[in-house]
Amino acid sequence: MRVSQLLNPTLREVPAEAEVISHQLMVRAGLIRKSASGFYTYLPLGLRVLRKIEAIVREEMDAKGGQEVLMPIMQPAELWKESGRWEVYGDELFRLKDRHNREFCLGPTHEEIITDLVRNEVRSYKQLPLLLYQIQNKYRDERRPRFGLMRGREFVMKDLYSFDRDEAGLGESYKKMYDAYCRIFSRCGLAYRAVEADAGAIGGTGGTHEFMVLADSGENAVVYCPECNYAANVEKAECRPQVIEDVSPEGQHKLVSTPNVKTIEELSEFLVEPKTALVKSLLYQGDEKLFLVLLRGDRELNEIKLNNALGGFVSLQLASPEAVSTILGCAPGSVGPIEVPAGLLVIADEEVPLMKKAVCGANKADYHFVDTVPSRDFRIDKILDLRMMEPGEACLKCGVPLKEARGIEVGQVFKLGTKYSKALGATFLDLNGEEKFCVMGCYGVGVSRSIAATIEQNHDDNGIIWPMPIAPYQCIVVPVSTKDALVVETADKLYLELKRLGVEVVLDDRDERAGVKFKDADLVGYPIRVTIGSKTLANGQVELRERKTGETKLVLVEEVAGQVKTIIEKALKY
Amino acid sequence: MRVSQLLNPTLREVPAEAEVISHQLMVRAGLIRKSASGFYTYLPLGLRVLRKIEAIVREEMDAKGGQEVLMPIMQPAELWKESGRWEVYGDELFRLKDRHNREFCLGPTHEEIITDLVRNEVRSYKQLPLLLYQIQNKYRDERRPRFGLMRGREFVMKDLYSFDRDEAGLGESYKKMYDAYCRIFSRCGLAYRAVEADAGAIGGTGGTHEFMVLADSGENAVVYCPECNYAANVEKAECRPQVIEDVSPEGQHKLVSTPNVKTIEELSEFLVEPKTALVKSLLYQGDEKLFLVLLRGDRELNEIKLNNALGGFVSLQLASPEAVSTILGCAPGSVGPIEVPAGLLVIADEEVPLMKKAVCGANKADYHFVDTVPSRDFRIDKILDLRMMEPGEACLKCGVPLKEARGIEVGQVFKLGTKYSKALGATFLDLNGEEKFCVMGCYGVGVSRSIAATIEQNHDDNGIIWPMPIAPYQCIVVPVSTKDALVVETADKLYLELKRLGVEVVLDDRDERAGVKFKDADLVGYPIRVTIGSKTLANGQVELRERKTGETKLVLVEEVAGQVKTIIEKALKY
Repeated sequence: MRVSQLLNPTLREVPAEAEVISHQLMVRAGLIRKSASGFYTYLPLGLRVLRKIEAIVREEMDAKGGQEVLMPIMQPAELWKESGRWEVYGDELFRLKDRHNREFCLGPTHEEIITDLVRNEVRSYKQLPLLLYQIQNKYRDERRPRFGLMRGREFVMKDLYSFDRDEAGLGESYKKMYDAYCRIFSRCGLAYRAVEADAGAIGGTGGTHEFMVLADSGENAVVYCPECNYAANVEKAECRPQVIEDVSPEGQHKLVSTPNVKTIEELSEFLVEPKTALVKSLLYQGDEKLFLVLLRGDRELNEIKLNNALGGFVSLQLASPEAVSTILGCAPGSVGPIEVPAGLLVIADEEVPLMKKAVCGANKADYHFVDTVPSRDFRIDKILDLRMMEPGEACLKCGVPLKEARGIEVGQVFKLGTKYSKALGATFLDLNGEEKFCVMGCYGVGVSRSIAATIEQNHDDNGIIWPMPIAPYQCIVVPVSTKDALVVETADKLYLELKRLGVEVVLDDRDERAGVKFKDADLVGYPIRVTIGSKTLANGQVELRERKTGETKLVLVEEVAGQVKTIIEKALKY
Repeated sequence: MRVSQLLNPTLREVPAEAEVISHQLMVRAGLIRKSASGFYTYLPLGLRVLRKIEAIVREEMDAKGGQEVLMPIMQPAELWKESGRWEVYGDELFRLKDRHNREFCLGPTHEEIITDLVRNEVRSYKQLPLLLYQIQNKYRDERRPRFGLMRGREFVMKDLYSFDRDEAGLGESYKKMYDAYCRIFSRCGLAYRAVEADAGAIGGTGGTHEFMVLADSGENAVVYCPECNYAANVEKAECRPQVIEDVSPEGQHKLVSTPNVKTIEELSEFLVEPKTALVKSLLYQGDEKLFLVLLRGDRELNEIKLNNALGGFVSLQLASPEAVSTILGCAPGSVGPIEVPAGLLVIADEEVPLMKKAVCGANKADYHFVDTVPSRDFRIDKILDLRMMEPGEACLKCGVPLKEARGIEVGQVFKLGTKYSKALGATFLDLNGEEKFCVMGCYGVGVSRSIAATIEQNHDDNGIIWPMPIAPYQCIVVPVSTKDALVVETADKLYLELKRLGVEVVLDDRDERAGVKFKDADLVGYPIRVTIGSKTLANGQVELRERKTGETKLVLVEEVAGQVKTIIEKALKY
C-alpha cells in the first residue's frame, strides 16, 4: 500500500475527549474515528489489527476443535424470558421492537441463542462435546462509554460455548479453552496473566479465570505470586488470616468515652491503639435484608466476597443512616457488635475471632468498648474470608509475599454448569438412554478491547509500538526525499521486493518532509522502518530501524529485504 | 474435518415453512437454522460458504483500490436527520433508543456514516478518489420476511462508497466497480447478467445497474438481447414504439353505446376490434396530484417509468373511484381522454399518438368513442415511454427480438452524484482552491443472498450442487463400511493426503449406512465425492464422482488425490 492513497489521517494534537493513552493514540494514529458516544468506525489500519487478532483467535479455537458459527445479533425477547434474563438484565441491554411490536434485544452475549440451537439439534451423547464459537459485534448500553475501544457500546468479541456430557467433560473443555487463551495472548505478543476471578452476573459457580493484559492503566487490580503460579483478581483473591501477637484482657470489656470520634483513624489516634487492635463494624443491606459485618480495623471489605458468600443479592450496599438508627439506635460511626438485636445476622471476617483484644463501637454516640475479646464477647453467626487482599501478603499456596499489578481484562473463561441448559431444556440421552442436561461453559475474548489493551502496554511518547503479530503492517519504507530520483527509485524497488517476499509493507510516497514521515511512522507504530536517504545511498546503504528498541543500523540495499524478512520471521515464531 | 464431529444436522423432510428451494435446501443441508422470523444462525458449513464469498468480494474490492473499513451497525439518528432520510425511510428502518433516550437506527445502508467520515477527514482533491468499503450485517424490517436468506431482516452485505472529484471520476469508479462485480459473480461460478435498472428510493440519477443471478425462481424479470449486450430489468427496459398499420377515419369520432362493457377485454370483444386499436385511460394519483395516463389497449403501464418521468412521488397509485367520479363524472372503467378538464395533465405513452384510429372511453357509463384519431382528438400534454417491455420485442439498440429471463438481484452499482455530499456538506478544495462537493457512488453486494441465489441456480432433486469456488468443502471421502479395516484405513489415509495437498476435505467417518452417507453428500452438495468400498478396493481402486455431472469413474488409490486436486484447480481457474 502507498501511504499517499491510504486513508490514515494522523493527528499531532491529543483529542480532547480521549482520557487514556490507547484512546488518544488510536485516534491520533488514524486507526479509529468516533461516530457516536461508544460507537466507532475502524479505519483501514485499525481494521487490519482487528482482523489479525481475529485470525489468531480463530486458529486457536479451531485447533481445539471449535466450530465457527454465526448467530444473529438481534435476538428475540422470548428466549431471554425463558432464561429469566429479560427482566434482570437492566439498562445495559439495548432493547427494540419490530414493526409488529415484537420485542428484541441486541445481544451482549449469546447463551440463549446457542442453547436454543443445541436443544433443537443435539439428541445423543454421541454429538457431545460440542464447542461452538463466533466472532461478532456485541452490544452493551454502558452508562458512561469511554476510553475508546476499552469501554464501547458496540464491540467485537469471540464467544465460544462448550456443551459436555458431564462435569468431567466441562473440565476438559475448560482446560482446552484456558490453554487456547494462553496461546492467543502469547501469540499477540502480550504480557498477561490468567487470574482467578469472580463469576459475577453471568452465573455459574464452577470457577472462572480472567485473562488480564498487564498495564499500569488497567481498571483491575491483580495479585500474583512471584514464586508459584497463583494469581487472582483482588476481588477474588483468597486471604490467609493474619494473627497479631497480643494478650487478652482478663476482666470484662469496658465502656469508654470517645467524644467526637467517628472514624477508625480518629479512634486509633484517640486511644493510641494500632488499627489492628480495632474492629470495624458495618451494617449492610442486601436487597431487603440487613446484617452486621465485622473486620479488623486495618482491613477493607471485599463486597464481592460478601455477596458471593451470602448467595448473591441484586443490590448490596451499606445500610442507610436511617436504617442504622432504627436497628441499632445510633449513627453509622458508632456501630458495634455487642448487644445487637437477636435477629441481626453477624458476619465476621476470619481475622476478627483471632484478635486477642479489641476496641469496637458501642452503638452509642461518643462511646466505645475497649478490652473486648471478640471470641468471648461477640455473637458471631458466620466466619468468612471477607476482606480485600493487600500486596505483600503471603501467598495462600506457598507463603511467599504476593505482588500487585494492574490489568485490563481481555478474556474470561467460565464454567456455567447447567444454568442455561436447565432453563431452556437442553438435554441429551446418555449412554444408558437417560435424559441429562448439557453441562456448559462459556469463553469470551474481547477482540476490539485487546487492541486498546495492547497499546496501553506497548507505547512510548512517540506513539504505538505494535507487537509484530498484530501490527497493521510489518514494515514501512520511507524515502526521505521525493526529489532525488535514485532515492525514489530505490524505495519503490525495495517496496516491491518486500511485497514479493510476503512482507506486509507500506511505502510512504507522500511529498512530505522526512520529519513528518518519521513522526507518522513512529505514531502508527510500524515495527520496522527502512529509510532511504541520498547520503547513505551513495554508499549503497539504507537505514534499518526497529520501533521497539529504537536500534538503527546501516544495511546494504541488496541485503535489507532479507534482513527485514528475518526479523519478522523471528518475531512471529511462537 | 470428520463428519462425526461436525455440526451438520441434515433433514430428509422439507421444512414446512420453506417456500423456495434454496431455503428448503439450506435448512435440509444443515447450513442455517432460524432463530426468529428473518433471523438465522449460520451453522459451520453455511458460514464457510459465506466466508468464501466474502473473501472473493474482498479480493476484488482490494484489486480496484478499495480500502476496507468497518462502520458501526448502530447509527445515530442525527445523521439520518441531516440527510433527510430519518423521516422518509418508513417502517423498514429498525429504530431504538439508548438509556439516555437518544435515537438510533440499525443501518440498512451507510451513506450517512461514510459521508460524515469523509467530510471530517477529506480536505483536498489530492485525497480523492477514495473507495471505502465494508462487509457487514445490515438490517431491514421487512413486512414479510421469507425465503430464508433471500429476504431476511438481518443480512450480510458488502457496501462500497466512492468519492470522486467530478463526474468523470465517478464514471471511472463506477466502471471499476462494474468490472469488479462481473469478476465476483463469475468467480463465484454464477450465471448472471448486469442489467440496466431503476434507481429507486436510494436516489441518484446518474445511472445504475443490477447484477442478476439467472434462476427461474427469481423475483425480477429481465429482458436481454441475444445479439448485442443490452440487458435491463423490465422495470427499466426502454421500449421502441410499435406502429400498427391502419387507416385513419376521415370524419369525426362517434359516441357508441357499449352497455355493461367495462374492461379492455370486454370492449375488444364487444366491438370486434383488436386491443391494439383501443386506448386504455387511467386516472392516477401521485401524492396529492391527479393526472390521466394513456396507453394502447394491449399494453401494461410501467409505474416505475411513470413515477421517474414525473419526478418521483412518495406514493403513486390509481386514483380512487371517488376521485374519478369527482373529476370525470364517471366510474374508472369509463375513463377517456376526450373533453377532460383543462387542468388535468394528460400523459400518453409514445405509441398512443402513433395510432391511426382508436376506441376510447367517453367518461360516461356504457358509452365509448370510436373512430378517434389520438393525434387529432386528444389533448396530450406529455409523450413518454411508459409501458412494460414484452419479451420478443425488438432490442432498442440492434433490433433483434429480446428474450426474457428471471433473475435474483445480488448486486447493484449506483451513481449517487452529490445527493449525500450536499446534504451533509462533504466538500474538498480542488486544484484551484475552490470548494467542491464530493461526487459519490455506492455499490452493494448481497453476500448472504448470493448463497441463496447460488442454490436457486445450482441444485437438482437430490440437493445442492455447489460451484467449486464457494463450496463449503471441495471434497468428501466416504468409506462405505466402518467394519472393513482396510476400507477405513484407506479412507483415513486418503483424507489426510488430500488435506496435505491443500484440498478442503471432510471424511464421513460416521457409523451409518452407505446410502445415508451418499444422500447427505448429495444434499450438502460437495463437488467431489471419493467413495471407498471393499469390492473396488480389492482391485486397488476407489470411485471418483463429480456432483455436477454425476460422472463416476474408478481410479487407482494412489492416483485419486492427484486427480481430485486437478479437478479443483481447473474449477478454480478464472
